[in-house]
Amino acid sequence: MQSPVSFYFDFSSPYSYIASEWIEALAARHGRTVRWQAILLGATFQATGLRPPVDFPLKREYALRDFARSARLEGIPYQQPVPFPIATQNAARIFWWLHAQDADRATAWAHAALRAYFTGGVRLDDAAALRKLAERAGIDANDAEAAWADPQWKLRLKQANEEALAAGVFGAPWFVVDGEPFWGNDRKPQVERWLAGDRF
Amino acid sequence: MQSPVSFYFDFSSPYSYIASEWIEALAARHGRTVRWQAILLGATFQATGLRPPVDFPLKREYALRDFARSARLEGIPYQQPVPFPIATQNAARIFWWLHAQDADRATAWAHAALRAYFTGGVRLDDAAALRKLAERAGIDANDAEAAWADPQWKLRLKQANEEALAAGVFGAPWFVVDGEPFWGNDRKPQVERWLAGDRF
Repeated sequence: MQSPVSFYFDFSSPYSYIASEWIEALAARHGRTVRWQAILLGATFQATGLRPPVDFPLKREYALRDFARSARLEGIPYQQPVPFPIATQNAARIFWWLHAQDADRATAWAHAALRAYFTGGVRLDDAAALRKLAERAGIDANDAEAAWADPQWKLRLKQANEEALAAGVFGAPWFVVDGEPFWGNDRKPQVERWLAGDRF
Repeated sequence: MQSPVSFYFDFSSPYSYIASEWIEALAARHGRTVRWQAILLGATFQATGLRPPVDFPLKREYALRDFARSARLEGIPYQQPVPFPIATQNAARIFWWLHAQDADRATAWAHAALRAYFTGGVRLDDAAALRKLAERAGIDANDAEAAWADPQWKLRLKQANEEALAAGVFGAPWFVVDGEPFWGNDRKPQVERWLAGDRF
């Protein structure tokens, strides 16, 4: 039994969204499962002194072009959300609450929320929008709201961020294959070769 | 006649070095030449408020691993130089001085200096080492030193940095193919597809 591929993602990260659409199939082709880990890039930025690319005007302009282009390259829908980025701790807490019950439900939620934000501009930072999205995803809205307000799931997300930092993760998407770290959607070919056993 | 591929690079940038080893052949396969443009990332960082990845401990650790891994993936030699990064304005001024005479000689110098630093640790920021490297590359050492001390070539490099920034360049390597910008050695597959006319 081979170890799962670790996949760290942030609900407000375009490259995380893009990678979320290919990582399952890629891992499955090599007999692997995926261990999804919702984190907050804001927390890793704060801890490392890094800042998001869109904080810098020139970098923002390029990044917006590259987000859409990277999605087209993968053949997946993408619509630049406005506002961007947004606070995603509530979506991430729902993820960890579901994860404690059933990892597959958490993954399904991750897909639902990432797609909602990056193809339909659904405001994951808005309580009403998030409740509605939860309902559409088959999750009771009151339970979802209770989860994101619960200190237990706030703490769980905090732990996930701390564990990520302890593992050297400072960006997303971030993959670990048999101990080897890869940062970025653009590392797909390298992740694929590593999974195929080509330890270049 | 198709327009050349613009290739912005910095003499202290590992990913620039790696890309410098594949860009000529890639462009040639698609009937293109390459317009090499030496810039100083220090200047673009200063103008944009960005900082080099190796300024951040976690990012530095990952970057050092990824530099070597990216080189192995391309099958080219790489030896992490120490110290790193270094000041490369003199090497870049030699580039622009040669470029005013013969663009091919400037390209040959770029290859020589990038390879010297990234495979042999030759200190491009050291006058004696740079003179010796120039001689080995068939350039008179006194002429090279006169060029790097000459206000004309200092100004030419400054202009190159300003032109790069005006064109939206904030990192290296940076490619422009028919007006489309691509940042990073890891954009090789996209550059290749764009050159092949696949405007994804």
